[in-house]
Amino acid sequence: MKRIVFTLVAVIAVAGIAALTARASGRADGEATPGIKLPPGYRDWRLISVAHEAGSLNDLRAVLGNDAAIEAYRKEKLPFPDGTIIARLAWSYVPSEENNKAFGREQSFVAGAPTNVQLMVKDSKKYAATGGWGFAQFKDGKPADEAALKGCFSCHEPAKANDFVFTHYAH
Amino acid sequence: MKRIVFTLVAVIAVAGIAALTARASGRADGEATPGIKLPPGYRDWRLISVAHEAGSLNDLRAVLGNDAAIEAYRKEKLPFPDGTIIARLAWSYVPSEENNKAFGREQSFVAGAPTNVQLMVKDSKKYAATGGWGFAQFKDGKPADEAALKGCFSCHEPAKANDFVFTHYAH
Repeated sequence: MKRIVFTLVAVIAVAGIAALTARASGRADGEATPGIKLPPGYRDWRLISVAHEAGSLNDLRAVLGNDAAIEAYRKEKLPFPDGTIIARLAWSYVPSEENNKAFGREQSFVAGAPTNVQLMVKDSKKYAATGGWGFAQFKDGKPADEAALKGCFSCHEPAKANDFVFTHYAH
Repeated sequence: MKRIVFTLVAVIAVAGIAALTARASGRADGEATPGIKLPPGYRDWRLISVAHEAGSLNDLRAVLGNDAAIEAYRKEKLPFPDGTIIARLAWSYVPSEENNKAFGREQSFVAGAPTNVQLMVKDSKKYAATGGWGFAQFKDGKPADEAALKGCFSCHEPAKANDFVFTHYAH
């Protein structure tokens, strides 16, 4: 119960801050590039799942969620509530010589240098035009420009049945 | 400061419980198979890093740490203090058709069914014979038998300079 109350308070706080920020910057609701900030402490969030994107991305990634995200995933509750933030961290996919020696074969790939961090922020009113989600990307803590975010929602549209989220919870 | 106190309390509590458990089960100090239990709430621990083991393991893995582990990693402080627990979760490495469709090419691999969970538990006295680390493995929450743990320490010995831990923190 305490946890639910805490989560509710957190969700309300996030929503409140988001609303204030939107007002202060004079941005219109449903704007494609929402000016989302990297939330402090996101590196401490709990793990949703992991993945490897091969090809030109060639990264290892961890998907973390704030409390609202984790609660929704664990309760298998869709759509995600307002206040949900999902953070995708990625690092270059590099072979580990040290691990390969221990295993006695070439098989181990680990996280190298960080590539970028992507966020999905749920606010069903503010981001109504993009399925209720705001999208953001950061490299070395700096936000990507608007052009880089144009493709986010259209790419996520095939996952509509899962509230536009591709990542499933790793049990 | 509050966090340090909390961590200290947690470390002391874990050490105390471990000592009591050892006494209750009548096991000798330094025993190779320590009878370590899966700590409640380990799935909520913070992320240390991610990896992909190809070859016969063919898994995606996340390495999580309790508060003592994360503090030590972030302060780059070796050896890890007593009370440190590092948990390696792994899932089968499976292609994601859904993601590949969105990307328009075959490149996406995600976490499938869980394979097993491995733990390293630091207690420099209890596990003195194995570099201060107790090793454990769980499948579907059930501990592996002693035979499965015989190779743990010898495999970790090459990482002696890093206090027998292979995984580096993903920044």
